[in-house]
Amino acid sequence: MTSPAPQLHPAHACLIVHGKDTPGIIAAVSAMITRIGGNIVAFDQYSDDPRGGAYFQRVVFHRPDFAAARPQIETEIAATLDPFELEWSLTDQSVPKRMAILASKQDHCLLDLLWRNRRGELPTTIPMVISNHTTSAEDVRSLGVPFFHVPSVAGPDKSASEAKILELLKGNVDFVVLARYMQILSPEFLEQLGVPVINIHHSFLPAFIGAEPYRKAKERGVKLIGATSHYVTGDLDEGPIIEQDTIRVTHADTTEELVRRGADVERQVLSRAVRWHAEDRIIRHGNHTIVF
Amino acid sequence: MTSPAPQLHPAHACLIVHGKDTPGIIAAVSAMITRIGGNIVAFDQYSDDPRGGAYFQRVVFHRPDFAAARPQIETEIAATLDPFELEWSLTDQSVPKRMAILASKQDHCLLDLLWRNRRGELPTTIPMVISNHTTSAEDVRSLGVPFFHVPSVAGPDKSASEAKILELLKGNVDFVVLARYMQILSPEFLEQLGVPVINIHHSFLPAFIGAEPYRKAKERGVKLIGATSHYVTGDLDEGPIIEQDTIRVTHADTTEELVRRGADVERQVLSRAVRWHAEDRIIRHGNHTIVF
Amino acid sequence: MTSPAPQLHPAHACLIVHGKDTPGIIAAVSAMITRIGGNIVAFDQYSDDPRGGAYFQRVVFHRPDFAAARPQIETEIAATLDPFELEWSLTDQSVPKRMAILASKQDHCLLDLLWRNRRGELPTTIPMVISNHTTSAEDVRSLGVPFFHVPSVAGPDKSASEAKILELLKGNVDFVVLARYMQILSPEFLEQLGVPVINIHHSFLPAFIGAEPYRKAKERGVKLIGATSHYVTGDLDEGPIIEQDTIRVTHADTTEELVRRGADVERQVLSRAVRWHAEDRIIRHGNHTIVF
Amino acid sequence: MTSPAPQLHPAHACLIVHGKDTPGIIAAVSAMITRIGGNIVAFDQYSDDPRGGAYFQRVVFHRPDFAAARPQIETEIAATLDPFELEWSLTDQSVPKRMAILASKQDHCLLDLLWRNRRGELPTTIPMVISNHTTSAEDVRSLGVPFFHVPSVAGPDKSASEAKILELLKGNVDFVVLARYMQILSPEFLEQLGVPVINIHHSFLPAFIGAEPYRKAKERGVKLIGATSHYVTGDLDEGPIIEQDTIRVTHADTTEELVRRGADVERQVLSRAVRWHAEDRIIRHGNHTIVF
Repeated sequence: MTSPAPQLHPAHACLIVHGKDTPGIIAAVSAMITRIGGNIVAFDQYSDDPRGGAYFQRVVFHRPDFAAARPQIETEIAATLDPFELEWSLTDQSVPKRMAILASKQDHCLLDLLWRNRRGELPTTIPMVISNHTTSAEDVRSLGVPFFHVPSVAGPDKSASEAKILELLKGNVDFVVLARYMQILSPEFLEQLGVPVINIHHSFLPAFIGAEPYRKAKERGVKLIGATSHYVTGDLDEGPIIEQDTIRVTHADTTEELVRRGADVERQVLSRAVRWHAEDRIIRHGNHTIVF
Repeated sequence: MTSPAPQLHPAHACLIVHGKDTPGIIAAVSAMITRIGGNIVAFDQYSDDPRGGAYFQRVVFHRPDFAAARPQIETEIAATLDPFELEWSLTDQSVPKRMAILASKQDHCLLDLLWRNRRGELPTTIPMVISNHTTSAEDVRSLGVPFFHVPSVAGPDKSASEAKILELLKGNVDFVVLARYMQILSPEFLEQLGVPVINIHHSFLPAFIGAEPYRKAKERGVKLIGATSHYVTGDLDEGPIIEQDTIRVTHADTTEELVRRGADVERQVLSRAVRWHAEDRIIRHGNHTIVF
Repeated sequence: MTSPAPQLHPAHACLIVHGKDTPGIIAAVSAMITRIGGNIVAFDQYSDDPRGGAYFQRVVFHRPDFAAARPQIETEIAATLDPFELEWSLTDQSVPKRMAILASKQDHCLLDLLWRNRRGELPTTIPMVISNHTTSAEDVRSLGVPFFHVPSVAGPDKSASEAKILELLKGNVDFVVLARYMQILSPEFLEQLGVPVINIHHSFLPAFIGAEPYRKAKERGVKLIGATSHYVTGDLDEGPIIEQDTIRVTHADTTEELVRRGADVERQVLSRAVRWHAEDRIIRHGNHTIVF
Repeated sequence: MTSPAPQLHPAHACLIVHGKDTPGIIAAVSAMITRIGGNIVAFDQYSDDPRGGAYFQRVVFHRPDFAAARPQIETEIAATLDPFELEWSLTDQSVPKRMAILASKQDHCLLDLLWRNRRGELPTTIPMVISNHTTSAEDVRSLGVPFFHVPSVAGPDKSASEAKILELLKGNVDFVVLARYMQILSPEFLEQLGVPVINIHHSFLPAFIGAEPYRKAKERGVKLIGATSHYVTGDLDEGPIIEQDTIRVTHADTTEELVRRGADVERQVLSRAVRWHAEDRIIRHGNHTIVF
C-alpha cells in the first residue's frame, strides 16, 4: 500500500513564543525573521491583556536550507527573545510528527486516524498502535502500521503494563493519542513518558465526567450530545480542552443510538485536535489552550 | 400598535395521550377522531418500549364547531382511553395560551419574547410582565403589555414577594416564563402556582450548574458555550430539559464576549421552548421531555 | 474478518403508504395492523394539506412469524388500502438491503460506507464495489467485498461500460450508491437498472451545480461549504434531495483545504442518506423527499 | 431612554493595510507602531501567496492621546508603507461609526439592529432610519432614532426617491445597512453615496438568487435554508460575501415556516456582518472579503 506524502512544507519552520506581554515583541520577532533570511508565511498572536498579561505567538516562516541553518537561527532567536524573558520552541515543518495511538476495543477513532494519516491529511507518521485487545491487529497491520498487544493488568497496580507500554514508546514518538483507550494512565507514567498525550472524551466536558457518558446523557434527557478532545494531565477529564463539538439528539434516540451518533462526533473532534497539535497550532497555558 | 393575529388555527384541537403502551391505542384513537367528525392534521407518537413501555401521542385534528362540541368530544375521548388506563388532555388550538414573563435587569430574553409575540410568531398572549427591577417598564408598556414591579426581598424569607407575584399570576396565566429572572422560586410557590414554569439556564446543562456559568466556562477553557431551557422543578437546574443549543467560541473571547454571544443563544433556545410549549408539543415524563 | 450482525430487527416489517389524503386512513391502517396480529413500533405520517393533499405514512410493526404470514398480510393491506386508492410497499426489516457502490479515485465516501457497514451501523450488505479505477481494489477486497473494475470509455458513447456495469448489478442489488463516482449515467442506464440510485454532490445544491464546486465556492468567496445527497434522475444535479449539511470556512482556506474539509461533510451526509434509505425512511414525491 | 455606552475603546486605533506581499512588512509596521508610542492590542495578517500574492493586515494599537497625535502618526505610517506601495486606512476606535438603516415592511432585521445598538453591542450610532413604508415609524422613534419616510416610486425611474434618500444620507453616515429593504439601488446612487452598503440576502447565495428565495427553496426541497450578508455592488446579489449561516428544515416546514425560521438566521447573520464592519474587521479584495 503506497502512502501519499503527508502535508509537509519543505524549508518551513514554526516558531512558538509565549510569556509575559511586553511592547515590542512583534517588531523584534519579525525583524529577526527578516534578518535570518526568512519570509513569514503565517503570523498569529494573542495577548490576554496587553498591559502585562500572557502573550502567545505563532510564526511560520520559509527559510531556504532551514535544516542546515537551524543552529545559527536558534542562536538568533535566543538572542532576540532572551531580553523579553519569553519561552520559545522551534519546529521543522518538513518533518512529520511521530504519533503513537493507544486503543482498546472501540476502533472508530483508531481507524479514522489511520485512514486520515494514509490519505496524507495529517503531517504525521504512525510508528505504532498499542492496544489492550487484539481485535484491531489485522486492520492496523494491513495498513502497514506495527501493532503491539499489551494486555491490561487487573487490579490497582498497573505498573507492569505501563512499563511495557513505556518501553515501546520511549524515544520513538513525539506525541501519543488515546483513541478511546479505556485505561487510566498513572501520573508516574505520564511523567516518564515526557511527550504530550491527547485524549478524546466521549461527552461535552465538563458535563458527564467519567464513565458511560451516553447513558448519563440519556438519563438526563439532553437534546445535544458532544465530544471533547483534551491534553491528558494527572487529573482525569481535567486537562486543557483542545476542541469540542455537539450534535442534536431527540427523546427517541436510545442510548445505543447516542453511542453510534456520538462515534461520528468523537472521530471528527479527535482528528481536528490531532491535526492542530501536529501542525504546532496549540499552545498550552495553565489549564487552557490557545489554538491558532 | 396593531397586533397581528397570532398563529392560531380555528376549529383545531390537540389531544395529548400518555401512559402504558398497549397494542391498539393508535387504532382506537384514530377511529374515535373519525367518529367525532374530526380530520387528523398531525399525528405523532413515541413508545420507549413497544412491549409495555411508556407511550406518548399527540394528535391535532380539525373539527368544525369544536368549541360547541367539546363536551361530547371529551366524553368520547374518555370512553375510548379509559379502558387503556391512559392519561390525556385536550386543548383548543384556536385559543392562545396566556404567558406571564418574569424578568430581572437582563432584558434580551424578555424583549425577544415580547417582539416575537407581537409579530404573531407565538400562539400566546402576554397578560403581564413582572420584574424585580423597573428598568424594562417603559419598553414593556410601550408594547401594550402590563408591567408590575415586585422588588426582591433580601434574606432567605421570600414569602412576601412570592405572595405578591402569586396574587398577580393566580388564575390569569396558563404558563410562566423566567426570562433571565435571577431569583430562585420556592417549592411552595411552584406548588401554589399550579401552572408550568419554563426557565432559560445560560449554559449547556448539566455543565456549569448554578451562578455565573460564562465565567466558569471561560475558566474551564471550553470551545463551545450553550444554553438550556427546562421546566422548573423544586431542584434548581434539574428540571426536564426542553431545548439546548451551543455556539463555538475561542481562547480570544473574554467572559464579557461569552456573555454577549451567549445572549443570542439564550433567546433562540428560550423562544423555541416557549413556542413548542404553547403549541402543546411537549410531554413531560419523569425528568425528561418528549418533544413532537 | 468477522462481520457484526447489521442493525436488523427480526419479525419487524415496514409499511410505506402514500397517495391522496382522505379522512380515516390512520384508523384503517392501525386497525388493520392490530387485525393481522401486529404491534406498532413506529408510526409517522405527513400530509401536505389535510384537505385532499398528498398523504405519506410509515408504519413499522412487529409481527411474530412475519415472513411466513407475509402473503396473507399483503392481502389484508391491499383490502384495506385499495378503497382509499393509496399506493403502498411492504419491506421485511429482518432482511438487509443489498447496496452496490460505484466509485472512482476519490475513496473517502467509499471507505466510509464500507467501514460503517462492517461495524453494523447500516442495515445493508455490500455485494460489490464497481470502479472505473483500480486504486481501491485492495482496500475493498481486504474487507471481504468483491471489487470489479469497469474502465470508463472515452467519448460520448458510454453504452459499452454502462452495459458491463448493468450486467454486474442487474438482479443483484436493491440500490446503488455513487460514492464520488465521477461519470454521468445515461437515462437509459437508469431506466434499465430499475433500482434507486443515491448520489453525493460535493456542494450545497442548488449552489455550485456541476463540476469543481469547491473551486467555484472559493471564487465566490463563500463562508460556508456544503454537501448534498440526492436520488439520481435523468437531470444531473436535479434529483430529489435527501440530506444536506454545511461547515464554516474562511478566506484563509485554500481550494485544497475546502476539498479536504468538504470530504468530511460529504461522507457524513452520504452515510445519513444511505442509512435512511436502507431503513425505509424516505418517500419520494415529485422532486422532493419526505424523510421520517 | 438611556443609551449605554457603545463598545468603544478610548485611545485605540485600527490600521488596515493591503497590497502586494513583500518580505518585511510585519517588521516595518510593528517597529513603526513602537516608534509612535503605540502598544499592539490585536494583530492579524493574511497573505494569499507569500511569494508576491495579495497581503492584508489589521493592527489595533493603543496610543495615549491618539486623537491629538493622529496627524504625525499618519505621517509616520505613510513614510513606512509608501516604500512597500501598500494601501492603508486608519480609524479611531473611540469614535462610533454612523450607521443608517434602510428598511421596508419586514422589520425583524431593523428591530434587531436598533435593539443591539441600544444594548451597546455595536460600536455604532444610528443617525436615521429610512423606509419606503411608515409601519415602523413609531417603533424607531420610540427608541430615540429619527425616522424618515421616502415612498418608493413606481416604474423604472427611481431617481426621484433615490435623490431624496441621498440628500438625507450624504455626509451624515459612515455606512448604510439594507435591513430587508426591498428596493434595488441604482449604480448611480451607490456611486454618489460613496460609503459602504451592507445587504442581507434571505438565502444561501449563490443559491436562490433574486426574489422569493424561501418559495424557491421549498420547491427545490432543500434540507437547509440560509442567509447571506454581503456588500452591495452594481450587480445585485453579487457583491463580496461577509457572512453566511444555515439552519435545518424538513419536508414538513411550509414556505411560511421557512420565512419565519429564516428571519432568525437573517438577523443573526446581518448583525454579525454589521458588527465586523463597524469594528474594521473586514477588508474587501476583488469580490471577496478578508474577515479578521
